[in-house]
Amino acid sequence: MAIAQALEELHNLLGERLRRAKPELDAHGHSESYFPNTPPDAVAYPVSTDEVRRLVNICAAHNCPMVGWGAGTSLEGHGLAVRGGVVVDFSRMNKVLEIRPADMDVTVQPGVTREALNEELRATGLFFPVDPGANASIGGMAMTRASGTTTVRYGSMRDNVMGLQAVLADGRVIHTGSRARKSAAGYDLTAMFVGSEGTLGLVTELTLKLHGIPEATSAGICSFERIEDAVNCVQETIQMGIPMARIEFVDAATTQAFNAYAGSDMPAVPHLMVEFNGSPESVAQDADRFAEIVADHGGSPFQWSAREEEHRALWAMRHNGYYAILASRPGARAIVTDICVPISRLAQAVKETQYDIAASDIPGPILGHVGDGNFHTILLIDPDQPAEMLEAKRLSDAMAERAIRLGGTCTGEHGVGMGKTAFMRQEHGDAWDVMGSIKTALDPRDLMNPGKLVPQG
Amino acid sequence: MAIAQALEELHNLLGERLRRAKPELDAHGHSESYFPNTPPDAVAYPVSTDEVRRLVNICAAHNCPMVGWGAGTSLEGHGLAVRGGVVVDFSRMNKVLEIRPADMDVTVQPGVTREALNEELRATGLFFPVDPGANASIGGMAMTRASGTTTVRYGSMRDNVMGLQAVLADGRVIHTGSRARKSAAGYDLTAMFVGSEGTLGLVTELTLKLHGIPEATSAGICSFERIEDAVNCVQETIQMGIPMARIEFVDAATTQAFNAYAGSDMPAVPHLMVEFNGSPESVAQDADRFAEIVADHGGSPFQWSAREEEHRALWAMRHNGYYAILASRPGARAIVTDICVPISRLAQAVKETQYDIAASDIPGPILGHVGDGNFHTILLIDPDQPAEMLEAKRLSDAMAERAIRLGGTCTGEHGVGMGKTAFMRQEHGDAWDVMGSIKTALDPRDLMNPGKLVPQG
Repeated sequence: MAIAQALEELHNLLGERLRRAKPELDAHGHSESYFPNTPPDAVAYPVSTDEVRRLVNICAAHNCPMVGWGAGTSLEGHGLAVRGGVVVDFSRMNKVLEIRPADMDVTVQPGVTREALNEELRATGLFFPVDPGANASIGGMAMTRASGTTTVRYGSMRDNVMGLQAVLADGRVIHTGSRARKSAAGYDLTAMFVGSEGTLGLVTELTLKLHGIPEATSAGICSFERIEDAVNCVQETIQMGIPMARIEFVDAATTQAFNAYAGSDMPAVPHLMVEFNGSPESVAQDADRFAEIVADHGGSPFQWSAREEEHRALWAMRHNGYYAILASRPGARAIVTDICVPISRLAQAVKETQYDIAASDIPGPILGHVGDGNFHTILLIDPDQPAEMLEAKRLSDAMAERAIRLGGTCTGEHGVGMGKTAFMRQEHGDAWDVMGSIKTALDPRDLMNPGKLVPQG
Repeated sequence: MAIAQALEELHNLLGERLRRAKPELDAHGHSESYFPNTPPDAVAYPVSTDEVRRLVNICAAHNCPMVGWGAGTSLEGHGLAVRGGVVVDFSRMNKVLEIRPADMDVTVQPGVTREALNEELRATGLFFPVDPGANASIGGMAMTRASGTTTVRYGSMRDNVMGLQAVLADGRVIHTGSRARKSAAGYDLTAMFVGSEGTLGLVTELTLKLHGIPEATSAGICSFERIEDAVNCVQETIQMGIPMARIEFVDAATTQAFNAYAGSDMPAVPHLMVEFNGSPESVAQDADRFAEIVADHGGSPFQWSAREEEHRALWAMRHNGYYAILASRPGARAIVTDICVPISRLAQAVKETQYDIAASDIPGPILGHVGDGNFHTILLIDPDQPAEMLEAKRLSDAMAERAIRLGGTCTGEHGVGMGKTAFMRQEHGDAWDVMGSIKTALDPRDLMNPGKLVPQG
């Protein structure tokens, strides 16, 4: 009844921008992952911070849960309204509010997607570098602390959100951070909100760092017989201070999927795909120096190019990895895992994972952001075989436990959501309770994305 | 009486490592700044995390405030026990616990100084880059979110602390972060502790990112008639993606102080001092490209060198800036200010500040980390003239207000401490109360560095 009352008041506030039709609820009740459908009671489409503030006040008055929604590309079910309530879809708050080329920053609404943002930035010679693969919304990327292929060079959302505006559970609208490049003025609330998965408030504005579009790029690919050699090659490159813009690892199984999908004929061994950004001279030098390191570690000759069309082909192959792998088992559904370890433990983590997968009945090619120690398996299950889903879950759980045991984290970039809650105690110990205390301090009635991230009563 | 009881129990725990002699209390009751002496009731020298935990339990049982102390180089009085209690001096927890060259990280105790750490790292080819000038302790640097000359390239403590161990006010020992290079597993407690100025707990261990000692360095100096030209030159260099390792601004008054102090004969105009790190080829190219940008903005010919002894001389001059300026007014005491603004507002902020200083009776040369938009005035006052102290305070306050008005922050790197509390409401609005809520959630009885950072009851 309380929620019904909230919905009536929200309808008065939003009119047709409060939706209750089943297809709309269903579209906001499933994710790009394996969680059961969980339609909310309603979907709200606010258009301004002030409207979000009013929405929050109505929901708070009636104990109605609120769950933010970006582009719906989360892999861990962050946006599922597991305790009912209203999904707040930010797709109509998708404006680029102010671009400041001199300061290399931009203020945006949370619903803008990273591709739309970069399209708007094009004329400035600047770009927003964080690239999780999917065309996610900036708000969603901030809330999951997203990263991706370019993080080794440009950092993750942690490093690229300078400040934000959020509506708290009690309706207060706060601003965090500033437009200064650094500050020592108090707790880093920006960092606290980035990665909070909507549990502390609804973010309605973000200020982001931008970077200059590099003058030149070189990129290429090389192969190794052994994973250790590929990892050692990357370690040495980092230690030498050669600034890689991307450094991606794909295992033999992924290479075979590429070959089948794109008609290429790469040897079925681990590969590294790498990109350098800089001046025409520096990217040539970086590529040459990298080629020497590759040779020192027994890799194949590093074939690189400064031509943009070849880079596009290379990264299209990488970005299509998910689809290539999916196509390698017709009719399969993918369970995508995500762990991150210290780079010295990366080869061990990959090999133990491969061993586990080989001993199971399901295929699981591996690919990842090797410069960060972050990798994924794409576990291919037959959706009609419940045993395969259980097996995938077992493999995924073993990976998370392995990552924690090796000094890493149960999620490098996908977030906690529904899928990683079970590992939070193991990873954080009593610090998980500290997260719970912070949540309670800011949202004592647990209205902001309840049931997620913190220990549950 | 409660504190007396705590001190008795602490004496039983620590023996001669609990000190109550007046000289020792006085040494921990003044800072490198203008705040009145505030000796604590005792100084404790714990040697292990477990001892800190016991200390905290004793203090908590008797409502005795606890204030962390590193190298005592804070400029804002962070370590002053304004409500009495125990100063916890970490100078005996100064070990480098584990260096992991393959992962380019290190775990240290909080009392190690940055110079001692880099000395221990030397053989590894790695270094810890954050350089606030003073030979501060790593724990103190983390607690104030320190940065400095190299932040434009290597980031601040925010970017270089991967995780930490802290003893909370209730005696729980928590670990934050992991040794993975990134994580999306929950609230970023590491970032919350970095910059918390000891108000959330006592940090007993830190894991830091390391960087490869650059193969080659180029560095040099150039001058400009107008501040705007110097700033525009830096902006363009950043936009071009030329990676500066340091880029320091000194104004005409600072240049004159250098000349008088070191016998140099630089023209009395604004100067930029810049350094590039990389390969021998890349640092030469970077310097050449920078020289072109300098010329485009009307600067003097950029004189650079790849010779280490010349770099040492350059940065010795910069690092001695404080002493050079101090020597320019014999007998004077220095009040060092610290603000940070978006770089597009930097020239305006410097010029308005210069105008204010010129209209006052006290000198105040300006220097700063121009790549971050961060600068300092060193206001020289006669300690026997109370009116000059008031005037310095007025100028400093005007700077903080100016920074906030221009979209920046009242402190770029020195922290809040005693000196910037008055500006927290103006800078953060309701977000300051959120900081207070977090503090209360973790330290409900306000025992950890009470009277600092958050709104006071």
